[in-house]
Amino acid sequence: MHCEFTLQTSGAGLYEFTSNVQRWLREAKGASHGVLTLFVRHTSCSLLIQENADPEVQTDLQAFFQRLVPPSTDPSMSYLRHTYEGPDDMPAHIKAAMMPVSLTIPIVDGQMVLGTWQGIYLFEHRTASHTRRVAAHLG
Amino acid sequence: MHCEFTLQTSGAGLYEFTSNVQRWLREAKGASHGVLTLFVRHTSCSLLIQENADPEVQTDLQAFFQRLVPPSTDPSMSYLRHTYEGPDDMPAHIKAAMMPVSLTIPIVDGQMVLGTWQGIYLFEHRTASHTRRVAAHLG
Amino acid sequence: MHCEFTLQTSGAGLYEFTSNVQRWLREAKGASHGVLTLFVRHTSCSLLIQENADPEVQTDLQAFFQRLVPPSTDPSMSYLRHTYEGPDDMPAHIKAAMMPVSLTIPIVDGQMVLGTWQGIYLFEHRTASHTRRVAAHLG
Repeated sequence: MHCEFTLQTSGAGLYEFTSNVQRWLREAKGASHGVLTLFVRHTSCSLLIQENADPEVQTDLQAFFQRLVPPSTDPSMSYLRHTYEGPDDMPAHIKAAMMPVSLTIPIVDGQMVLGTWQGIYLFEHRTASHTRRVAAHLG
Repeated sequence: MHCEFTLQTSGAGLYEFTSNVQRWLREAKGASHGVLTLFVRHTSCSLLIQENADPEVQTDLQAFFQRLVPPSTDPSMSYLRHTYEGPDDMPAHIKAAMMPVSLTIPIVDGQMVLGTWQGIYLFEHRTASHTRRVAAHLG
Repeated sequence: MHCEFTLQTSGAGLYEFTSNVQRWLREAKGASHGVLTLFVRHTSCSLLIQENADPEVQTDLQAFFQRLVPPSTDPSMSYLRHTYEGPDDMPAHIKAAMMPVSLTIPIVDGQMVLGTWQGIYLFEHRTASHTRRVAAHLG
């Protein structure tokens, strides 16, 4: 069973879509045991399992990666060549290499085995708004 | 077929559990070909496939990530806000974003296709002892 | 259905093998819907989904990770102990921890759901030539 989630982003940051996935799992009525595969069809954003309790975790995550991979206008990044799509473009590709493009989550009794504090996020690395597509397979 | 591995950690570092997985695969007697999915149910530790020959690889890995993401008491990390769970907590979430939460390993003739030097590790990012749960699915 | 791709590398960098995978999918004539699992059987190179349009993206990716994790001969890396396999060896293990060892890509109508600009790469982290093996499972 497969579907595609469409997520609208409005700037860099984490966008939770755990409940979208849960709703699809309920409606899909697939096998009660299996594996959910998520795959993001872009190279400038990531998928992430992260804490969904304190929103400051998300702010801090973004702040860390922004410092680790600053915009290409930053003097420390002057060696970058792929800059014509904007100062946030190549850093977005770098972040996309460091964080998951695909996630696999076991399903037990029809539910994802997420831990108590785990949520599923799209991590948008671009500053402009984007429409992001996440392919899902349940098998 | 699914199960859950429970691992006790006692401080930051790598904990190998390759043999636990191999034992389960032998006992589960699943299909001789398929895929093993591992998923760690926490946001402050990671799963890792790494070299199991020289223990210094594990020490060096930990040393690198400790420098890349120092405790929140380090002056360079003063921008972090999620600090009330301890100076190692937010760095643990950051490391958990940079390393796998899920792994998928093909099974051929009943065996994982691990390379000669590959072992399966839980990478604990917290300094206190923790009980960690890793969900496994064989299909 | 499973197979193993063998890739020859000649120095650090990204090696695309999207077309090898597509050819196998066509010849394997597996189920039209499912999941492709790729797993690299080494601890000093990675798998990566990245942009396949502008080759400078690949050059920049390599340049970034080379700066983030310089050779062990670099003064900033003097704390590394696992150095006897060469100055590029331990940095290769570190990079292999930061980027995927396994990828899962949904298959719809017999095709991978790759986005328009997504290609599948082996990211070689060692400077010497290597023969790299990537296990694949289609199910």
